[in-house]
Amino acid sequence: MSTACDFQALSALDFESWAAALRARVEQKADAALPRPSGGALDTLFEAMRYAVMGGGKRVRALLVYGAGTLAAAPAAALDEAALAVEYVHAYSLVHDDLPCMDNDTLRRGKPTAHVKFGEAAAMLAGDSLQPEAFERLAMTGLSDAQVNALTRTLARASGAHGMCGGQMIDLASVGRRISIDTLRQMHRLKTGALISAAVRMGALCGDPARFAVLEDDLSSYSAALGLGFQVVDDILDVTASTAELGKTAGKDEASDKPTYVSLLGLDEARALAGRCGDEALAAVARMRARPEAAREGLQRLEELSRYIIRRTC
Amino acid sequence: MSTACDFQALSALDFESWAAALRARVEQKADAALPRPSGGALDTLFEAMRYAVMGGGKRVRALLVYGAGTLAAAPAAALDEAALAVEYVHAYSLVHDDLPCMDNDTLRRGKPTAHVKFGEAAAMLAGDSLQPEAFERLAMTGLSDAQVNALTRTLARASGAHGMCGGQMIDLASVGRRISIDTLRQMHRLKTGALISAAVRMGALCGDPARFAVLEDDLSSYSAALGLGFQVVDDILDVTASTAELGKTAGKDEASDKPTYVSLLGLDEARALAGRCGDEALAAVARMRARPEAAREGLQRLEELSRYIIRRTC
Repeated sequence: MSTACDFQALSALDFESWAAALRARVEQKADAALPRPSGGALDTLFEAMRYAVMGGGKRVRALLVYGAGTLAAAPAAALDEAALAVEYVHAYSLVHDDLPCMDNDTLRRGKPTAHVKFGEAAAMLAGDSLQPEAFERLAMTGLSDAQVNALTRTLARASGAHGMCGGQMIDLASVGRRISIDTLRQMHRLKTGALISAAVRMGALCGDPARFAVLEDDLSSYSAALGLGFQVVDDILDVTASTAELGKTAGKDEASDKPTYVSLLGLDEARALAGRCGDEALAAVARMRARPEAAREGLQRLEELSRYIIRRTC
Repeated sequence: MSTACDFQALSALDFESWAAALRARVEQKADAALPRPSGGALDTLFEAMRYAVMGGGKRVRALLVYGAGTLAAAPAAALDEAALAVEYVHAYSLVHDDLPCMDNDTLRRGKPTAHVKFGEAAAMLAGDSLQPEAFERLAMTGLSDAQVNALTRTLARASGAHGMCGGQMIDLASVGRRISIDTLRQMHRLKTGALISAAVRMGALCGDPARFAVLEDDLSSYSAALGLGFQVVDDILDVTASTAELGKTAGKDEASDKPTYVSLLGLDEARALAGRCGDEALAAVARMRARPEAAREGLQRLEELSRYIIRRTC
């Protein structure tokens, strides 16, 4: 089965089918790429890594890699690796965030969290192991060394102290405190936004560098708006959706006295903000329509992704 | 001050002075490279990262980067970044290993462990943040994209499930159980050996690729022997040295019923094994003497390093 071939076939699909096909593809690629238990001393670690990455999730970040990659006409094999890398980092962050010393949560994607299932030490090591595994995936893209380095730098920057980990730190420090809307924005720009922006950027970096250079600014606006919108919607859903719908504990923010867009702005104003984020993302796509470097199908996918992220109900 | 210049000046120094100068250099480079608290929301995270990396340690891995780099006539600026990257990964692993859900230790390098000082969540996030920071350092070496990729792959492979994290997993699973000498070797080959081998390989990878190719096999033998010897000596010191000498809790292995080379082989046989490791490392250096690609000063430093590691008393 040629990878390029079945990727091409996706272009005819409507958004829901496209997303479903790519979710299945991520699952299959992760299954093939992650170390597999084989009766040895490392089996628990391998099982915990697989448990963390596989078996569900919306795969928003992987879809953004594929969407931006389609825009930049990137090779499918490279996008597969970049999508895995981003999902590995996201998965590790969930495992660590769920640990008792962090958010202490027991339910994730409708299943027991990794430390509940495998113990804290194995969960922590599984998270620790997924980080270098993500960077190894980027070395497997088959792209030029310069592109691999750009991908590596993008993922590293988005996931560390100036990105995702920094956001989680502010989050933990904010529990039970009044923070300003600016601090809340900074927290989410780092905690969620950085990796979402990295996903978009990485998808496009897998394409031709000259094409990337032309699209870079508009893609940054697109992903910044989307990252903010994603978090605002998450905060709204924490209030309005049930635990069963979310697959994770609902009402958690209020119960743990966490500041959110809803607690700071109220539900109506939070919804209006999410709407404005969606508009901004669509405006960035509209600007790229004027660029011959932007592949038509990619524009369509990015538009669909922004609607999906802003209008999702769980 | 030119970086190349002050590095050159080191060549005249005896081993102790060379090591001391490079330790100071690592400290200074880490101080300049690590994010600095500035009165913002991320200060605790930045402080915990600096605490984890700075302020001591033997810097064995950094010294191996510099030693192998000297052998391969690598540029000083590249070695500085590679040394930082390896030390960041080592430092993060110590912070995570010391956490209550892992080895639950309170003393490290003569100071309270990071989670005792900053809390578990901040310690964990500091560790998590140091991993991508390490990969970012490799992108700063100024080497060719191909060399940076080789460095990235080497560090990623050594630190993940098939390296350091895998070794820690076996370690945790072995507490209170009888394991074979083969399992013990596998555990340490992964837990300690992988990163030590990576340090040697990374130093040499910073040099000319053709030179690296010629030296690769002998360097692998050298670092494998050294990695094993390092751990055997560590196990010996846990029995024979005091907490004050070690700067970490002595007698910990026996107290926690951990299998060690001493518990499996006895003290005399463990000492003999350490000696054989040292001999093997020296034999690999002797083989490289016949290679015009091996810089003389580097051979000397690798010889000195193997003596230092095998004969150290704390």
